[in-house]
Amino acid sequence: MARLVLKFGGTSVANLDRIRNVARHVKREVDAGHQVAVVVSAMAGQTNMLVDLCRQAAPLHDAREYDAVVASGEQVTSGLLAIVLQEMGVNARSWQGWQIPMRTDGAHGAARIGEIDGERLIERISQGQVAVIAGFQGVAPDNRISTLGRGGSDTSAVAIAAAIKADRCDIYTDVDGVYTTDPRIVPTARRLDRVAFEEMLEMASLGAKVLQVRSVEMAMVHGVRTFVRSSFDDPDAPQTGIGNLPPGTLICDEDEIVEQQVVTGIAFAKDEAQISIRNVADKPGVAHAVFGPLAEANINVDMIVQNISPDGKTTDITFTVPETEYDRAMKVLEERRESVGFGAIEGARNVVKVSVIGIGMRSHAGIAAQCFRGLAEKGINIRAITTSEIKISVLIDSAYTELAVRTLHSLYGLDG
Amino acid sequence: MARLVLKFGGTSVANLDRIRNVARHVKREVDAGHQVAVVVSAMAGQTNMLVDLCRQAAPLHDAREYDAVVASGEQVTSGLLAIVLQEMGVNARSWQGWQIPMRTDGAHGAARIGEIDGERLIERISQGQVAVIAGFQGVAPDNRISTLGRGGSDTSAVAIAAAIKADRCDIYTDVDGVYTTDPRIVPTARRLDRVAFEEMLEMASLGAKVLQVRSVEMAMVHGVRTFVRSSFDDPDAPQTGIGNLPPGTLICDEDEIVEQQVVTGIAFAKDEAQISIRNVADKPGVAHAVFGPLAEANINVDMIVQNISPDGKTTDITFTVPETEYDRAMKVLEERRESVGFGAIEGARNVVKVSVIGIGMRSHAGIAAQCFRGLAEKGINIRAITTSEIKISVLIDSAYTELAVRTLHSLYGLDG
Repeated sequence: MARLVLKFGGTSVANLDRIRNVARHVKREVDAGHQVAVVVSAMAGQTNMLVDLCRQAAPLHDAREYDAVVASGEQVTSGLLAIVLQEMGVNARSWQGWQIPMRTDGAHGAARIGEIDGERLIERISQGQVAVIAGFQGVAPDNRISTLGRGGSDTSAVAIAAAIKADRCDIYTDVDGVYTTDPRIVPTARRLDRVAFEEMLEMASLGAKVLQVRSVEMAMVHGVRTFVRSSFDDPDAPQTGIGNLPPGTLICDEDEIVEQQVVTGIAFAKDEAQISIRNVADKPGVAHAVFGPLAEANINVDMIVQNISPDGKTTDITFTVPETEYDRAMKVLEERRESVGFGAIEGARNVVKVSVIGIGMRSHAGIAAQCFRGLAEKGINIRAITTSEIKISVLIDSAYTELAVRTLHSLYGLDG
Repeated sequence: MARLVLKFGGTSVANLDRIRNVARHVKREVDAGHQVAVVVSAMAGQTNMLVDLCRQAAPLHDAREYDAVVASGEQVTSGLLAIVLQEMGVNARSWQGWQIPMRTDGAHGAARIGEIDGERLIERISQGQVAVIAGFQGVAPDNRISTLGRGGSDTSAVAIAAAIKADRCDIYTDVDGVYTTDPRIVPTARRLDRVAFEEMLEMASLGAKVLQVRSVEMAMVHGVRTFVRSSFDDPDAPQTGIGNLPPGTLICDEDEIVEQQVVTGIAFAKDEAQISIRNVADKPGVAHAVFGPLAEANINVDMIVQNISPDGKTTDITFTVPETEYDRAMKVLEERRESVGFGAIEGARNVVKVSVIGIGMRSHAGIAAQCFRGLAEKGINIRAITTSEIKISVLIDSAYTELAVRTLHSLYGLDG
């Protein structure tokens, strides 16, 4: 007997037929003797429809009212799934965020989960009742409905799993697991059986869109074993995969990963733009003078590289921004050229960040050198490099994306 | 300065244009210095759509889950109206049933309102914030969403008005008030400026479909002055009617009605069927033996007439049932003919109950006689008669409906 959280996204509950399919997955786990909580999104299209209504009502609308309107989508799904489960003879009831309660901060529209009181849920699921929980929502300190922002249902599910001390949080999605890289680019990409939290965090934030970054962060902090699997699987198929798990990818503590690969995957983030500032005075406060105004303008800056200045007086700073923010970022910087004091500003659209990720890197030398040599052999120019303990990222021209990803995927022995 | 509750039904909030029109009505009252709470229904069609989803999910579904699903419709409208009001510069926020809280009993799907704590609402509206309340719903003792049953938003509005001690509850609807009878049958029907609670209760339960019976009952018990007016009125038109009120009908205590008419209106209920049981033993318990089984079969019995038995041994009982229940009722009775002991069962479909209503009847003699003579002069046969202090009801063949209603409408001087 295990305690499980199962999470189903919008396409998995798009209509009653699909909701019935979800119910069969739930029933299978109940029949296996597990205690089950289910977290559901709104039926596909509903959230967009409700968001549109709010926008039409007023372009700049109160986030608290937006939350009241938009959270209704998950409310509907939770009730319908409970009805379908009961029809199948499974004891079930729906839970809204305020009923649990799932407390969040007051940042309506993009709330962060605070304390979740898991007691009532634990009491009910221990009695064999399936808890069908409306994802994506909670209750703010002012007793009003809050939502977690788009994609927040993954985070809801992991947070619920932490609160009820679940053995595993199963994320049912439209892919059957986490791959060594995007299979659309590298047909030999393999599904990973296990990925460490830290690796998944890098992969999630670097463009592998399987899981929301926030949900992986939360899983790591609370040690929630998170299992990514396909909602299109036949619910009645035998649940046989590796290590007593059905087919999918387990995101877990590195201790659980017996044979750790040096490199786990190759991620890439398209739609980036590069900005380089030349001859910036090399003195305290200059980084803040550059990046402060960008932060104020709500421009998300990534991959900052600053070299030691050769003459001790000026240096160059390179960083990336989302391509859609490129023009705005350039304008913000031009306006401050004189006050901050720097030379030329150079930029390039159409760059891509390719990252080599692997927790095994920490104990293996030479991984970065291998990467640089591999790319050089293919004639791919590296525009900038950043590294962390478990990842190497290089910025290259986007025309070389596929070549670079395939080269690195082979180089580190990831081809299936 | 007054404290007002305004209630808008589904057609009044059917889309964002109509919601903007509602907001203009609200803004007018706020600009006039009033404290305002608004009660809204779901956007037209939404409740039916949600009910259909529940039915498709399972024909026999849990009423608690049905409530969670269906209540989402009003939640959406309340949020949208709050957004539109804010956009117009009116301070407003939405309230769900559980936030007020509006406590109900546990009869999910058809809950009855219990205690409403008006304190939080009063605090906010006293500060000039418009409360936009999701109608039709509350929170049951188990902390789950409850709904009041179809048409429950009128009842919500009156209950809120009682809880916050409102000066008036304005029901905006698709007619511009309560008429002396149905204007489609009697073109000379007049709008009534004022109607006493008791009269409205008779008119509501007798087929004038302006207000839900439950809402009128609640208005009477709590003395909530309820004003019926058209939601199609131009919100910016001058608010000039009779007695400092805009055009519409005020339902109020009879003390407020200075010039009381003897007869206020003529109501009629179509789609009735008559059943007569002959030669029933005239002894204690026989009424229960007849009507008990009908109640158990959930057949709504109306207008029961039993005469004193001429011989002291047997009597005849006549009553009406909805025409749709006629066959079922006849079957239930036939099955009990021997055990209860009665002679023939006779029935007639296509009968109509026509009622003359007026609180002034209490102090005027001869009203009933006038009615019977008027109908007799037109050759209309009366099948059965019941009376109360303020009403006379006659059962006639439905072919005579229009003739009878027009005759009585003229007879009591109601023609405009």
